[in-house]
Amino acid sequence: MQEKIRAVVVGGTGYAGAELLRLLCCHPQVQIAAVVARSHAGDSVTEHYPALRGFLDGMRFTGFEDTDLTDCDVVFFATPHGVAMRYARQLVDAGVKVIDLAADFRLRDTELFRRWYKMEHTCPDLLAESVYGQPETMREQMRSARIIGLAGCYPTSIELGLLPIMEYEKAHPGTFDLTTLIADSKSGISGAGRKADVSLLQAEMNDNFHAYGIKGHRHQPEIVQQLRLLSGNNALRLNFCPHLLPTIRGIHSTIYVRLKNPDDAIDVQRLYEERFKNEYFVDVLPAGSHPETRHVRGSNFARIAVHRPEGGDLIVVLVVEDNLVKGAAGQAVQTMNLLFGLPEPTGLDRPALAP
Amino acid sequence: MQEKIRAVVVGGTGYAGAELLRLLCCHPQVQIAAVVARSHAGDSVTEHYPALRGFLDGMRFTGFEDTDLTDCDVVFFATPHGVAMRYARQLVDAGVKVIDLAADFRLRDTELFRRWYKMEHTCPDLLAESVYGQPETMREQMRSARIIGLAGCYPTSIELGLLPIMEYEKAHPGTFDLTTLIADSKSGISGAGRKADVSLLQAEMNDNFHAYGIKGHRHQPEIVQQLRLLSGNNALRLNFCPHLLPTIRGIHSTIYVRLKNPDDAIDVQRLYEERFKNEYFVDVLPAGSHPETRHVRGSNFARIAVHRPEGGDLIVVLVVEDNLVKGAAGQAVQTMNLLFGLPEPTGLDRPALAP
Amino acid sequence: MQEKIRAVVVGGTGYAGAELLRLLCCHPQVQIAAVVARSHAGDSVTEHYPALRGFLDGMRFTGFEDTDLTDCDVVFFATPHGVAMRYARQLVDAGVKVIDLAADFRLRDTELFRRWYKMEHTCPDLLAESVYGQPETMREQMRSARIIGLAGCYPTSIELGLLPIMEYEKAHPGTFDLTTLIADSKSGISGAGRKADVSLLQAEMNDNFHAYGIKGHRHQPEIVQQLRLLSGNNALRLNFCPHLLPTIRGIHSTIYVRLKNPDDAIDVQRLYEERFKNEYFVDVLPAGSHPETRHVRGSNFARIAVHRPEGGDLIVVLVVEDNLVKGAAGQAVQTMNLLFGLPEPTGLDRPALAP
Amino acid sequence: MQEKIRAVVVGGTGYAGAELLRLLCCHPQVQIAAVVARSHAGDSVTEHYPALRGFLDGMRFTGFEDTDLTDCDVVFFATPHGVAMRYARQLVDAGVKVIDLAADFRLRDTELFRRWYKMEHTCPDLLAESVYGQPETMREQMRSARIIGLAGCYPTSIELGLLPIMEYEKAHPGTFDLTTLIADSKSGISGAGRKADVSLLQAEMNDNFHAYGIKGHRHQPEIVQQLRLLSGNNALRLNFCPHLLPTIRGIHSTIYVRLKNPDDAIDVQRLYEERFKNEYFVDVLPAGSHPETRHVRGSNFARIAVHRPEGGDLIVVLVVEDNLVKGAAGQAVQTMNLLFGLPEPTGLDRPALAP
Repeated sequence: MQEKIRAVVVGGTGYAGAELLRLLCCHPQVQIAAVVARSHAGDSVTEHYPALRGFLDGMRFTGFEDTDLTDCDVVFFATPHGVAMRYARQLVDAGVKVIDLAADFRLRDTELFRRWYKMEHTCPDLLAESVYGQPETMREQMRSARIIGLAGCYPTSIELGLLPIMEYEKAHPGTFDLTTLIADSKSGISGAGRKADVSLLQAEMNDNFHAYGIKGHRHQPEIVQQLRLLSGNNALRLNFCPHLLPTIRGIHSTIYVRLKNPDDAIDVQRLYEERFKNEYFVDVLPAGSHPETRHVRGSNFARIAVHRPEGGDLIVVLVVEDNLVKGAAGQAVQTMNLLFGLPEPTGLDRPALAP
Repeated sequence: MQEKIRAVVVGGTGYAGAELLRLLCCHPQVQIAAVVARSHAGDSVTEHYPALRGFLDGMRFTGFEDTDLTDCDVVFFATPHGVAMRYARQLVDAGVKVIDLAADFRLRDTELFRRWYKMEHTCPDLLAESVYGQPETMREQMRSARIIGLAGCYPTSIELGLLPIMEYEKAHPGTFDLTTLIADSKSGISGAGRKADVSLLQAEMNDNFHAYGIKGHRHQPEIVQQLRLLSGNNALRLNFCPHLLPTIRGIHSTIYVRLKNPDDAIDVQRLYEERFKNEYFVDVLPAGSHPETRHVRGSNFARIAVHRPEGGDLIVVLVVEDNLVKGAAGQAVQTMNLLFGLPEPTGLDRPALAP
Repeated sequence: MQEKIRAVVVGGTGYAGAELLRLLCCHPQVQIAAVVARSHAGDSVTEHYPALRGFLDGMRFTGFEDTDLTDCDVVFFATPHGVAMRYARQLVDAGVKVIDLAADFRLRDTELFRRWYKMEHTCPDLLAESVYGQPETMREQMRSARIIGLAGCYPTSIELGLLPIMEYEKAHPGTFDLTTLIADSKSGISGAGRKADVSLLQAEMNDNFHAYGIKGHRHQPEIVQQLRLLSGNNALRLNFCPHLLPTIRGIHSTIYVRLKNPDDAIDVQRLYEERFKNEYFVDVLPAGSHPETRHVRGSNFARIAVHRPEGGDLIVVLVVEDNLVKGAAGQAVQTMNLLFGLPEPTGLDRPALAP
Repeated sequence: MQEKIRAVVVGGTGYAGAELLRLLCCHPQVQIAAVVARSHAGDSVTEHYPALRGFLDGMRFTGFEDTDLTDCDVVFFATPHGVAMRYARQLVDAGVKVIDLAADFRLRDTELFRRWYKMEHTCPDLLAESVYGQPETMREQMRSARIIGLAGCYPTSIELGLLPIMEYEKAHPGTFDLTTLIADSKSGISGAGRKADVSLLQAEMNDNFHAYGIKGHRHQPEIVQQLRLLSGNNALRLNFCPHLLPTIRGIHSTIYVRLKNPDDAIDVQRLYEERFKNEYFVDVLPAGSHPETRHVRGSNFARIAVHRPEGGDLIVVLVVEDNLVKGAAGQAVQTMNLLFGLPEPTGLDRPALAP
């Protein structure tokens, strides 16, 4: 039997960190070596997460100063932007894999990074060798990577939702109009993070719904970067409009793509089924379906339906995922499995919690 | 002092009917003459609606057979499709105004009606004289109407959201691309009606979100009919994609419109502010805003924000309304006020319930 | 026509303050003279409360330094504890009525106040003349009061729920066991206040439920004080167990009282109906009912059902109220009406928002 | 390696049946032999439960007529009352274990059964040999049982919550007053079942809360039966007051027990910790805690806190469980593990889904 992967989670008190602990504590090939949470160093993990009582009893959060990050096989950064790049060099040099759930290693263009994240990128060389972490679209490039900039939650839903069309466009340029893409996305409120913000209170957000960031959202350039890569079309443009749902978890992206020729006889249902038939975590629903966020709640699956209303020129793709699992911690574990040669579903092969 | 308007509500046990009772019982110029509810005739109204205890004590639902619909000034039909058209002739002949909250008098084209509602229209002559009921877009035509086919909930949000653009297009044809309109709408679950349907249970829909009717929804032809009328452009096309929110009330429509010329310097914020400055119930939010459904909860207001992300060719309009008020019962009362010469806000001049 | 009451609201940015604005802006006999909100002085009120657009346009929050609190008829303090008592003397001397929604004038015993609120009471003389503000139980004492310490949200539900029993016990001592009272209360999350606290986030509290403060809650001594007053029994004891509901609004108190004699033939349904038959805002439901929090949502009504399961020695009283209305702002307005000689329902005579 | 247990689930379309499928499809020692659902025979299981796509693909619901219930090791009845007793004889004779999640084998007294379930018990002999299924309180009796009448959801929470006190009372009679027990329970709405009932709609129950069945609930005699058994005190009485929460899952029972001697120095915290220290699925929280329903969401754990407010004579026990897991399907699987000699946590050793 293989020795267990020793994993460190940095940033254990946000929602992505907590979700990593939930998944890793039951992963058959992982041992959690440490959980770093600066502001809560010394606290019992289960005091903060009573749901983990019986699983992580006795474990305490540590601080950076008393944690040897290099004494493990992989470090997950479930931190704000800017943290992973401070530690990446040291970890890579020590042979430790880095999986950053924040944005430090997502955008290839340091200028774009500065503009959207309001900070200088401090290790452009590592950025150059790092790989964008989205297994279904980037598997081969990821396999031997030392640093992964894990895809964001919204981007994962949109990149998966458009993958078959992007690849088809690459093979048959001019089939789709890639300059008028629209992604109207809706996210459960855990996507806004675990922060003491009045606008995220239950009394404000329950029985409520609204858009935000319509004039520009950080995930937009990330999605465009990947869609251009997948389609090979650098003229591709996307309007991305995020909304906040009064649910705890779940992203639903409604994606609009136009065919250039309204008479094009392309069978999009079959295109999607073919493309994803070997992907464990991507489920193409039968024609005419409408995926629901509850049907991926707590699981690493994405479910997709593709429509062509009234046989017109508009393709409507509906994608659901759990923003904390396939959109964050689950995808991070899937990535770890890939990096360490394990079957990707290891520790993730559980159905959603519905109802 | 003017005599009170004697109103009858037919269909008192659905959500729109209940909302009519909530609004009419406090309307200073209305007396509720009868509430018809076939399957509950004889029952106490407040037994079904304890929230109305203290307001409609002693009132009982009646059946059609024991109610003289012609003995009043106005009849509201908060019924399924097909009911109002059975009674309209008799009422009109008796000088009673008819306000139908269902679809009998919405579509001008009886063929379209048959296709979408699976029934024959039985009084095409009355349909021809009836007026579509949406005061902000159809006020002058409505004023002297005898029969009103009240606008649907989704259509109201989209028609209001596009009104300034439709009128601008009529005056300056070719400014906008009216063949690629998209309305991505989200509705609270009361919009699905008060019916014993497992898919609408709290245990199914709480913490959940999904699209429905992507291949075609009855409101689509209604919206297209009105937008063509407002813009004078019969080539106008619209993709309408509805979704169900895990909220009780509230519609949020996110509407996408493209400028034909990406360099067009049109000031959409000002266009919207100017158009609606005299409309009591339509509130254009400051530039950069994102309206929230809770800010219209229980009220007859629609709130609108208009964006042009990154100054590109796409205009994004965000509209919220309460589907049961501005989208149904409130608009019906506003319409009644208009028909009877009362100030439109009468009985509706209350702020939303937030939080 | 009477001149309008000029009202100042201090603490305009919490939930009770916002609710006061919602109610006062439509009150036919009130003019809002100023809204004090220290940390937001200068901000537009409707920027914080878009739901009030169209009602308080142009009004701005003021600070204490630029507001003459004595230039009005009544000041509502919707502030944390300790604020009202700093201004009460000055206001009373100027002939301005004080209605404190916090706890400064609730407890008669300054020692208890210090123990539960961790501060010294600075004006015990004013406390002595102040009156506890709960119209249904204290109307006559309140009528000429200069300072009102408005009842808390939980206390209102429990004091109303037990009023007929307390009065019966006063007239017939020994009927009920007043040493084993239990109130198991559940409150919507707005009752926890509008504060940036992670434990109140939608992502934490939606689809969740828990008790809190089981070892002791500030409302317990307040309730006991009033129940002893109403029953004339100083040996009365109460266990009060509050819980947090994943709703925005609404309190449901389930109250357990034992008869001393299990064979006592007392007709509690009639006792309750008789006691409350002239109270506009207290609704005794028919025997066998279960009141629901939605049936008082946004309204000033309390609804009560009283049960005696299997004819045993236990009386179970079920009470619902909207914690922000009858439990705070609505009761404050009712109190103002009482103090200024208006009919108590003025500005409050609207049904609940249901669904 | 042991051969897998062949399990049949009867009643696959209610919430408990669906939850059984979710748990059994990942159980390492179980093979699902058939899923009986009369009204949906022939339908694909995953068409009804898209969350199980990838796990039960290809499986179809069967009818009774085309299912040999005796061709398996265990049959779970997740059906309405009255079904299991029609099949129990045949199954027992064939050596198949019966686990009934309904009430056919819960009440020892057929007279009580008839009174509360409005039907005659058709196999009192089998009832006599059947065992009440609640592993923590009845483990030894259950081990060799052929028929299990699985404990109800509310009863499980209350029996676990009172177990240490019942046993202590048995050993030290007269410590507690067993004639004044009160259980104030709150259940998520899935506890009301998956039925097309208007009162369970999202639009009715979201943002709502109410009690029900105050005059008498079927679970009351079941709880009393078990508490009398555990305490050995047949004078024990309990008032049980259930309420419906606007959550999908989760039961919270708040239980009130009085000490006979208010000066009794009993250490209830220690009593509870000692009693449950070897129970995998029962977690006694540290003194002063308040368990939350989300911390057991989707898991088979019960979490308990015990309080003695102000050191008085009242003990307050707070218990949470997931009504569909520990309150139904999870407890059924735990029971199956026990009956077949597997470690009880097999297939159930996963943390709750929080947030």
